[in-house]
Amino acid sequence: MTIHKQNIAILGATGSIGTQTLSVIEEQPNLWNIELLTAHNNAPLLVEQAKKHQPQTVVIANAEKYEMVKEALKNLPIEVQAGQEAIVENVASPSVDIVVAGMVGYAGLAPTLKAIECGKTIALANKETLVVAGDLITQKLHNSPTAKLLPVDSEHSAIFQCLQGENYNTIDKIWLTASGGPFRGKKRDFLEKVTPKQALKHPNWDMGAKISIDSATMMNKGFEAIEAKWLFDLQPEQIDIIVHPESIVHSLVQFHDSSIKAQCGLPDMKLPIQYALYYPNRVETNWERFDFADYASLNFEKPDKEVFINLNLAYEAMRKGGNLPCILNASNEVVVHNFLQERVGFLEMSDLISEAMQKIDFIQNPTYEDYIATDRETRRFVTELIK
Amino acid sequence: MTIHKQNIAILGATGSIGTQTLSVIEEQPNLWNIELLTAHNNAPLLVEQAKKHQPQTVVIANAEKYEMVKEALKNLPIEVQAGQEAIVENVASPSVDIVVAGMVGYAGLAPTLKAIECGKTIALANKETLVVAGDLITQKLHNSPTAKLLPVDSEHSAIFQCLQGENYNTIDKIWLTASGGPFRGKKRDFLEKVTPKQALKHPNWDMGAKISIDSATMMNKGFEAIEAKWLFDLQPEQIDIIVHPESIVHSLVQFHDSSIKAQCGLPDMKLPIQYALYYPNRVETNWERFDFADYASLNFEKPDKEVFINLNLAYEAMRKGGNLPCILNASNEVVVHNFLQERVGFLEMSDLISEAMQKIDFIQNPTYEDYIATDRETRRFVTELIK
Repeated sequence: MTIHKQNIAILGATGSIGTQTLSVIEEQPNLWNIELLTAHNNAPLLVEQAKKHQPQTVVIANAEKYEMVKEALKNLPIEVQAGQEAIVENVASPSVDIVVAGMVGYAGLAPTLKAIECGKTIALANKETLVVAGDLITQKLHNSPTAKLLPVDSEHSAIFQCLQGENYNTIDKIWLTASGGPFRGKKRDFLEKVTPKQALKHPNWDMGAKISIDSATMMNKGFEAIEAKWLFDLQPEQIDIIVHPESIVHSLVQFHDSSIKAQCGLPDMKLPIQYALYYPNRVETNWERFDFADYASLNFEKPDKEVFINLNLAYEAMRKGGNLPCILNASNEVVVHNFLQERVGFLEMSDLISEAMQKIDFIQNPTYEDYIATDRETRRFVTELIK
Repeated sequence: MTIHKQNIAILGATGSIGTQTLSVIEEQPNLWNIELLTAHNNAPLLVEQAKKHQPQTVVIANAEKYEMVKEALKNLPIEVQAGQEAIVENVASPSVDIVVAGMVGYAGLAPTLKAIECGKTIALANKETLVVAGDLITQKLHNSPTAKLLPVDSEHSAIFQCLQGENYNTIDKIWLTASGGPFRGKKRDFLEKVTPKQALKHPNWDMGAKISIDSATMMNKGFEAIEAKWLFDLQPEQIDIIVHPESIVHSLVQFHDSSIKAQCGLPDMKLPIQYALYYPNRVETNWERFDFADYASLNFEKPDKEVFINLNLAYEAMRKGGNLPCILNASNEVVVHNFLQERVGFLEMSDLISEAMQKIDFIQNPTYEDYIATDRETRRFVTELIK
C-alpha cells in the first residue's frame, strides 16, 4: 500500500503548540513530510528542530538571527529564509497540504489569510487571527472550495468534537470552560500588586508566556468567546463562560432540545492538536487516560466579571464588532508585553485596553488595510500612554 | 406541504415510559398517528388514554380486564383486544412504523423480536429484552434491511448521542453513570432490614416500581451494562460503572485517542424518548434547562461491589453469556416481585439470584425456545425456594 504523506507547515514551531505538534507527528512519522518550520526568535531551537526533522525550508521571522540559522544548517539540504514575508510566501507553496498556525498574536493573521486563499487545511491555534479579523477569515473560507479551518484551542476542539454528527442549527448555546487561571477567587486589591512571575504560573496548562498572562487576566477566555462566535457562527448571547478549576471538561454544547454534550479528558494539548491533524479520524494513542478515582468532584462557578473586567471588554468588542476586536487585541498585546517587562501593573492592563477601545476610531466594516492601520494606530496609542 | 405522519405503537402505554411518550408526542400532534396502545393491567388509565388519543387499537394484556375496557370504549371506533399474543400480532401490522417498547421485564421480548422481524423502528426502553436475548436480537437486526433499534434508557441514549458522527471502532471504553439509588453509601447490615417503601424512593428519577427496586439493588445498572454490550458491540472490560449522585452526566464514552465525550442535562426521560422518536433530528423544546448555578459540583465515586453484589452477578452473566443473563433476569423478576410483597428481604434477593445462576442448566448457544424454557424453569425454581 502506498501512503500519501501529508506535507505540513508548522508556523511557530519553537513555541508550545509547535513543539507539541512535532511530538504528535513523531508518533506517525511515515504519514508526514515536514515542509516548513518557522520561528519568531528562538533560533537555537529552530536549528535543532531542523536538524532532527529535515524540513524543506525554515524561516526565522527575526531577520537578525538569519546568519546564525543559515550557518548552523549550511551542510544540510534545507532552504533558510528570514522575515514575516517569507513565512507568508512559503505557506502559499503548492506542496503544502496543511498549515499549523501556532504562532502568537497578530503575526498569525497574514499567513493564515494566505493559507485560506491558497485553499489549505489550517489547524488554528492562533486565536488572535479570528479575534482581529473573524469576518474577513470567514468570508474567505466561504469563498474557497477547499480551505478548511480546524480549531486547535482545547475549548474549540471540544465544541467541534461535540458537534460531530450534529446540525449546527440545533445549537442552543455553548459553555467555554475556564480554569480561572492562577488568580481565581482573588480580589482587585490583591491583583494590584501581582508580579509577572505569579501571573505566569498556570495551575493546569503548560503554555507560552503571552497566553499564560492572557489566562491570568481572563482575556484569553474573552478571545475564545470571539473565536467561538466565528468558528461556530454563534451570537454573543449563545456563548457563556463557566469557571471549572480542574480543566477536565474542556467545553460544552447545549442543543435546542435541552441535551448537552461535553468533551473531557486530562488537560493535554496533544489531543486537540492530533484531532485537527487527522480530522475526521481518531488515531489511537497510549497517552495517560482520565480516571474518576483522581477526580471525585468536578467543580463549576461563574466567572467574577467585577474582578476580571477583560471579559466585559471582550464581550463589548464582540457585540459591537467592526475593528473593535482588533483594537482589543492590539492594545492587549502591548499591555501584556509591558506587564511582562514590569512597566504596567496587572489591573492597569484593562484600563489601558478600555481607553484604547474608547479613543481609537471605530470602523463598522473594516477592510484588510483598515485592520492593519487599526492595529498600528492602537499599538502607537497604547505605547504612548505607557511611556 | 403534506406531512407524512408516523404511525406509532406504544407498548406499556400506562407505565412511566408510555405516559411520557404520549406527552412528548402531544407536543407535535400533527406528526403522529397513534396506531396502538397496550397495557399490562391498568385498564382505567388505558381507557382514559384511548379516549384522548383515539388509537386504532388497544390491547390489555390481562384478559380479565378485557370486558371492562371493551365496555368503556364501545361507542368509539377503537378495536379492543386482549392477551400477550394480541400485542405481538398488532406490532406486526404493516401500518406500524415505530414501536416504543416501554413494557416491563421479560414480557418485552416477544413483541420486540416480532417488531424486528417486521423491519420496524424500535425505541427500546425495555432493557430486559436485550439482557435476556441480546444475541438473538442482534442477529435478527443484522438480518433485517430496515429494522432499527434506538435506545431510550437515558444512559444508552447518552452513549448513542456521544457516538453520533464517530466511528464505533474507535471506542476505548464507556462509563455508565449510576445515581447509586436510595441506598448509596449504605452497608449490608442496614440493607438487611430495608422495606419496599424505602427502596421505592429514588432520589432523582421518577420511575415504575420494578425499575426503582432494580435501581436500589443496582441490578438495573448491571442490566444496563449487558444492554450496552449488545447495543454498542462492546466487550465486558470496556464497560465501566461510575456512581454520580446528581444524575446530570448521563454517561460517557472514551475514544482510543483518549478523548472523552459525555452527554448531560437535567434528569428527565422525555429527552431520551424524544431523541429516539425523531432520531437523527433534534426537536426544539422549551423544557427546563440545566444551570451550573444549581450544580456547583458534580461528584463521582466507584460503586461498592461488596454491598451491591448484583453488579458482580450481572458482569458474571455478561462474561459467560449463553442463557445465564436470562437466568439472571428471570430470577431477578421473581425476587423483586416477592420483595415488593415483603416475602423476601433486600439482601436475600441477590442470594436467590446467585443460587439460580448456579443451579439452572447452562446453555452456551440457546435458541429462542431455550430462552423460553430457561425463563420458565428459573421462575419455577426461585418461586420454589421462596415458598
